[in-house]
Amino acid sequence: MKLLDPSKPSLHVFDTLESEVRSYCRSFPTVFSRAKGYKLWDTAGNEYIDFFAGAGALNYGHNNTALKQKLVQYIQNDGVSHSLDMATEAKEQFLERFQKVILQPRGLSYKVQFPGPTGANSVESALKLARKVTGRSTVVGFTNAFHGMTLGALSVTGNKFKRRGAGVPLHHSVSMPYDGYLGSDVDTITYLESCIADTGSGISLPAAVIVETIQGEGGINEASIGWLQRLEKLCKASGILLIVDDVQMGCGRTGTFFSFEQAGIKPDIICLSKSIGGYGLPMALTLIAPELDIWEPGEHNGTFRGNNLAFITAAEALRYWESEQFTNEIMAKGDILRSKLLEITKSFPELQGEVRGRGLMQGIAFGISGLAERICERVFSKGLIMETSGTDSEVAKIMPPLVIDEEGLRKGLDILEQSVKEIAHEMKEQK
Amino acid sequence: MKLLDPSKPSLHVFDTLESEVRSYCRSFPTVFSRAKGYKLWDTAGNEYIDFFAGAGALNYGHNNTALKQKLVQYIQNDGVSHSLDMATEAKEQFLERFQKVILQPRGLSYKVQFPGPTGANSVESALKLARKVTGRSTVVGFTNAFHGMTLGALSVTGNKFKRRGAGVPLHHSVSMPYDGYLGSDVDTITYLESCIADTGSGISLPAAVIVETIQGEGGINEASIGWLQRLEKLCKASGILLIVDDVQMGCGRTGTFFSFEQAGIKPDIICLSKSIGGYGLPMALTLIAPELDIWEPGEHNGTFRGNNLAFITAAEALRYWESEQFTNEIMAKGDILRSKLLEITKSFPELQGEVRGRGLMQGIAFGISGLAERICERVFSKGLIMETSGTDSEVAKIMPPLVIDEEGLRKGLDILEQSVKEIAHEMKEQK
Amino acid sequence: MKLLDPSKPSLHVFDTLESEVRSYCRSFPTVFSRAKGYKLWDTAGNEYIDFFAGAGALNYGHNNTALKQKLVQYIQNDGVSHSLDMATEAKEQFLERFQKVILQPRGLSYKVQFPGPTGANSVESALKLARKVTGRSTVVGFTNAFHGMTLGALSVTGNKFKRRGAGVPLHHSVSMPYDGYLGSDVDTITYLESCIADTGSGISLPAAVIVETIQGEGGINEASIGWLQRLEKLCKASGILLIVDDVQMGCGRTGTFFSFEQAGIKPDIICLSKSIGGYGLPMALTLIAPELDIWEPGEHNGTFRGNNLAFITAAEALRYWESEQFTNEIMAKGDILRSKLLEITKSFPELQGEVRGRGLMQGIAFGISGLAERICERVFSKGLIMETSGTDSEVAKIMPPLVIDEEGLRKGLDILEQSVKEIAHEMKEQK
Amino acid sequence: MKLLDPSKPSLHVFDTLESEVRSYCRSFPTVFSRAKGYKLWDTAGNEYIDFFAGAGALNYGHNNTALKQKLVQYIQNDGVSHSLDMATEAKEQFLERFQKVILQPRGLSYKVQFPGPTGANSVESALKLARKVTGRSTVVGFTNAFHGMTLGALSVTGNKFKRRGAGVPLHHSVSMPYDGYLGSDVDTITYLESCIADTGSGISLPAAVIVETIQGEGGINEASIGWLQRLEKLCKASGILLIVDDVQMGCGRTGTFFSFEQAGIKPDIICLSKSIGGYGLPMALTLIAPELDIWEPGEHNGTFRGNNLAFITAAEALRYWESEQFTNEIMAKGDILRSKLLEITKSFPELQGEVRGRGLMQGIAFGISGLAERICERVFSKGLIMETSGTDSEVAKIMPPLVIDEEGLRKGLDILEQSVKEIAHEMKEQK
Repeated sequence: MKLLDPSKPSLHVFDTLESEVRSYCRSFPTVFSRAKGYKLWDTAGNEYIDFFAGAGALNYGHNNTALKQKLVQYIQNDGVSHSLDMATEAKEQFLERFQKVILQPRGLSYKVQFPGPTGANSVESALKLARKVTGRSTVVGFTNAFHGMTLGALSVTGNKFKRRGAGVPLHHSVSMPYDGYLGSDVDTITYLESCIADTGSGISLPAAVIVETIQGEGGINEASIGWLQRLEKLCKASGILLIVDDVQMGCGRTGTFFSFEQAGIKPDIICLSKSIGGYGLPMALTLIAPELDIWEPGEHNGTFRGNNLAFITAAEALRYWESEQFTNEIMAKGDILRSKLLEITKSFPELQGEVRGRGLMQGIAFGISGLAERICERVFSKGLIMETSGTDSEVAKIMPPLVIDEEGLRKGLDILEQSVKEIAHEMKEQK
Repeated sequence: MKLLDPSKPSLHVFDTLESEVRSYCRSFPTVFSRAKGYKLWDTAGNEYIDFFAGAGALNYGHNNTALKQKLVQYIQNDGVSHSLDMATEAKEQFLERFQKVILQPRGLSYKVQFPGPTGANSVESALKLARKVTGRSTVVGFTNAFHGMTLGALSVTGNKFKRRGAGVPLHHSVSMPYDGYLGSDVDTITYLESCIADTGSGISLPAAVIVETIQGEGGINEASIGWLQRLEKLCKASGILLIVDDVQMGCGRTGTFFSFEQAGIKPDIICLSKSIGGYGLPMALTLIAPELDIWEPGEHNGTFRGNNLAFITAAEALRYWESEQFTNEIMAKGDILRSKLLEITKSFPELQGEVRGRGLMQGIAFGISGLAERICERVFSKGLIMETSGTDSEVAKIMPPLVIDEEGLRKGLDILEQSVKEIAHEMKEQK
Repeated sequence: MKLLDPSKPSLHVFDTLESEVRSYCRSFPTVFSRAKGYKLWDTAGNEYIDFFAGAGALNYGHNNTALKQKLVQYIQNDGVSHSLDMATEAKEQFLERFQKVILQPRGLSYKVQFPGPTGANSVESALKLARKVTGRSTVVGFTNAFHGMTLGALSVTGNKFKRRGAGVPLHHSVSMPYDGYLGSDVDTITYLESCIADTGSGISLPAAVIVETIQGEGGINEASIGWLQRLEKLCKASGILLIVDDVQMGCGRTGTFFSFEQAGIKPDIICLSKSIGGYGLPMALTLIAPELDIWEPGEHNGTFRGNNLAFITAAEALRYWESEQFTNEIMAKGDILRSKLLEITKSFPELQGEVRGRGLMQGIAFGISGLAERICERVFSKGLIMETSGTDSEVAKIMPPLVIDEEGLRKGLDILEQSVKEIAHEMKEQK
Repeated sequence: MKLLDPSKPSLHVFDTLESEVRSYCRSFPTVFSRAKGYKLWDTAGNEYIDFFAGAGALNYGHNNTALKQKLVQYIQNDGVSHSLDMATEAKEQFLERFQKVILQPRGLSYKVQFPGPTGANSVESALKLARKVTGRSTVVGFTNAFHGMTLGALSVTGNKFKRRGAGVPLHHSVSMPYDGYLGSDVDTITYLESCIADTGSGISLPAAVIVETIQGEGGINEASIGWLQRLEKLCKASGILLIVDDVQMGCGRTGTFFSFEQAGIKPDIICLSKSIGGYGLPMALTLIAPELDIWEPGEHNGTFRGNNLAFITAAEALRYWESEQFTNEIMAKGDILRSKLLEITKSFPELQGEVRGRGLMQGIAFGISGLAERICERVFSKGLIMETSGTDSEVAKIMPPLVIDEEGLRKGLDILEQSVKEIAHEMKEQK
């Protein structure tokens, strides 16, 4: 394994013309041009293994061949590309297949809203609807949650840096401790129960609770099955709507299509985006329990609700879910991943690594400040793309495309292991 | 001219599986499958002339041939489709061309932010940045404004039905009368000046004013050049940032690329979306005066900031702006449109029609309740797609693709004229 | 007329021990010890005529003899002094007399709430109740309004300096132009009507409008009878509650007991405080149209709702209203006041004075910056206490106790005239 | 012991003329006329022992003889009764004595603000100042806290019924668990520390924390000394202002003048009201650490800041604090009270009573729903006035005037014991 060609493409155009807000181009300082499956190439021809998968938007890999074929064919036939929320053949096909492949086999019944093409659109629509249905305003979010950057979505997001970016105090929300936030011995659902039941808690009866089953951006914090079940029970008992934000954890990231399937809960509203479009194209869904679908026509709208190119690839991507096989494969690869991560943390106990997550959303939380970032920088120099997460970037996060083959997975993990090894040695020498 | 084939495609799938929030599929009750230029076809083979243009997202027409060619080629070459805000060749090319074709020739200097793929993302980022720059919270919006459906964008939107949809009181904003709102004889900028200068007005010094030069959704209300110039002057004098939301009016809709060029003003922040992607693909920009670009890296982010398919078509679409010719063509077609609309309103004075707008954003405001909707329904039955606007849907809005040819324009206008004539006669008979 | 003894009492104790927030002790830099009727004396024995009347809390004069007698007797008999909202004899007597002397003769029917002892308590309770009754949140306040310093009352106050003091953005309120704010030729009620009727105004249907018939703190701005009547009509037609804040203008300040009697309107809720207690003791009332009295027991409370010493003096003060005589006297003194003020403004046209107000709430608004403050300083040096008002302190305000005799009134006015004359001469010489 | 004369005075006047919001007159359904020390009499001549003391506003008893003498003398001499914030002899005397008797001996240095006459005024001013000083908006309040009924004070109050009364969502505040709220084994300060330190907690750095050392209204919940000390330490370390609301617990209620003296903490801002006036007259103070006194003159004001009758009695009441004797007496009576309460709870274990509080703020929390209210009703019928507290009225609260003699205290406690005994027997029989 050796460093990539150091003659990296210049970032001059971005440095001079694009806003200072740009971020990933700072972590991965090259100019990408092509991509396929789990690989990316930059304009200098360097090849990268992708353990990032567009932050979860590329579960089916870059330019997935089956999806690409449908997409090109649709474009070449002058299929409607943009349709607002008019009815189109592409949307019809997606709706039918989603019903047949995803909802029916799981015994789920939801109306489908196309709230605009981003996860934040889905979250905003879910919050609006929950408030409309209940006539109440407060929504409970959790510590370290991430739900998006628009004002409504930010108000239930935990990250203070992102919140401050709002420029205004964020209202109509309350932040409660996520599972494990107060240590493993404090039961945070009991606290939430008190806040809701107790007439002196200072917290109004919420319209809804919005939760991620695993907090990806927040540091791969996983809610236990028991905690999720008690949360659902509490919501049902108190007339609070349960919203699961499955934008990152859904579409198979944890093995099953929805991340909450193992917990056996049935949320009132589900937010999907990122990989729902299949090909990395902007698309989002809000799934609504039928009895809650009290929207007036046009009460929530948006220009890009009808991204038909995404409907085409989304429908094709659902074929992966026609049998159990895909889930089994993800689980198997998740096991390989876990074994390797455990091996790494055991080999270098001085790095205080803790393996977190499940399926193909796993990572190592390091007890040493700055270490995860250093590792991600090192692996990039060796041709592997990985991101940190957690509010202090303390977690090295591994989320390859779900379609990655075993060879690619092991190759990437070898780069990771080698990098960790190098850094562990360097740290020893520095002492 | 005759009615379309009445054997319309069934909307059963949409009626049963999609949320009640769907709206345009109710106005245009058919299932569309193909589209090209200014024409759409449904699955029954019926042809429609498009005077709606994806609410302004299809200025270059459906499946524009030049853009389509680039798009297919990019996909077939496995160009990166989704990149978050990593640097890609497609983005680089767009940035360079936007600088060269749009900003430089107009003597404008802006940093480009990719705030997420929708107009609301752009508005949200603009509001955040204005608040961060000024350290103040209030943003002035105008009566009948429309800026989007996320919580921040809604807070500066005038439409009460949309606002109510928020489910929570909307804060940190104040609504002021737009040009002409208090009648032609009341100078609404003077009122705004008082509110800002007067220490007893009850209105805090705003962070920003956000304005559309023509309010498309609000009823084709046009701000005069003088009003816009005084607004800019007031903002500059008081340290208030001026944000122009050019999401619908930009990209040539009024003739020039930016809608404010005729007024000669230089906004501090500009919001662009809809047709910026060229092909109807989700994409948005926030243009920021360089000295205001104080974002921290990642302070605003989003999964679909890097929709590279849109960057490809967006870059190609900018070729339309390499000379004056496109503007001249739009203006010429705008003149044809205006003549016809004036002719119609003069022929049927009993309908109390008033022609509004400019360029290819024009329409007729009717003094009779329900008339605009009736007309839009009638023209649809004859194969023409047109939308109403205004908070009481009192305006029949005409916004064809900018690339429509004269034949198509006249054909559509003939359908409109014929429909108005029929309805005028029916109304006489009903009396 | 000559300057007072310059050997003023020291303010050392206040300068060192009291907060910087103190204000009137800076305008009237002496230490007061005794007071009677319209006169005050400081510890050095200097005598002052009072044209300020405790900002309207001393309409019946300092230490009014009849009230004092009842007060001392009550205290000496160990009458209950503090009772929360328990029933007491003193409160019973007040309630009965208020009903008999004030409400019944005017054909008014209101339930009486004791919301706490200050005007702000009354305003806060009124806003709460209006929101509870209507289920809506927005309250319309007016430019230059003043309603108090607690967070709810501040939110409907116009003064930006006071508002900024909140330290947080103020929500759930909207500021609309008061009568005359946009010049005498712009009808501000029409604007308010538009904002309420128009579905695109950006302003939610309000729960209530809160208004002062004359804005005392705001610069003695008087709403016309026609404006108030149209405001009432608009409120009734739209299901908006009309709250009149009569804290300063009530209790006879404008001649009649309520300031809105001349306009013939019947507010839904009325706020009274300041002089309602009669003796300058803290007390406030919220008068509620009976059908709106849907409070739950204890839903609004407060320790000092039951200031029985104030109930005693309040009941006694109501004797002034048992006949028309008191109103006639106030009116007559108001005429004397107006004549003199007009005479002064005519004599010194270079001072650009405009006489405002009615009854014993009158003043001169000066077109020259700083002039009103200079006059108030000068008259104080000659033994007259007067305050400025208006957001730029541009108005010299005259509001003596209503019980002032003609001699006192003329004596004070002579000091004012003499002071204006001196300053006018000084200004000429300075040129 | 026998029931009072059943021919109670009629409440007809109150039932017909006063608002439904009245509450204590429902718990104590008679009309009071006279009071002295720890006794009250109704108009029918019935005598009541007062274990309520005006909710803490009558610590020195009703119509305290020494205070009364000064008060009557002041009134008879025509001392200034109402002065806004002008300097008066009465205020000067109070300021000097407060400095000398209270602050200096305790080594405390505070500027004194007169924020208006109520506890809520003090809380509102404290919140405003904390936000101004820090430039931040969020204030942390605690579960079961009670700080007042104006909008700012309500926003940091825990009681949901009171909060709902606001009619609007309450902003700029966050509710955190008070000491013991999550059970005796969960350390709630650690949670607060996490929320402040952790960048993903979703809670902005607060401007201030506002806390009661014992929550009187909230159910006599007592914060431990260690908890208060850690709270102070956390605040200091994070630049958060510590506000102690000592409105009910101050002025000797717990034994020492300030309730936090035992914890040895020095709050940045202290709110005082209720008994500070001595005679039950409306008065409040905000004590401000000198370096935080950055108010602009008049930035917070109010008509009744200068209630000079209260200044007179307040100054005289401070004489109680010139030696240690008063504290010792309160402590001794507190011991008697505690012994008796423990005796009662031990005698009737089936009532699940838990003795809470210290000094002369003690009570019994009952585990049986409705029991505390039943007891308070019973004791009233026997001539004892006692109130419940806690959000479910589960606590029978005993807070007699601090000057009560041992005989009165024991007599009242005997009524209590007898009533508990009766009810315990009745409950047995009902089974």
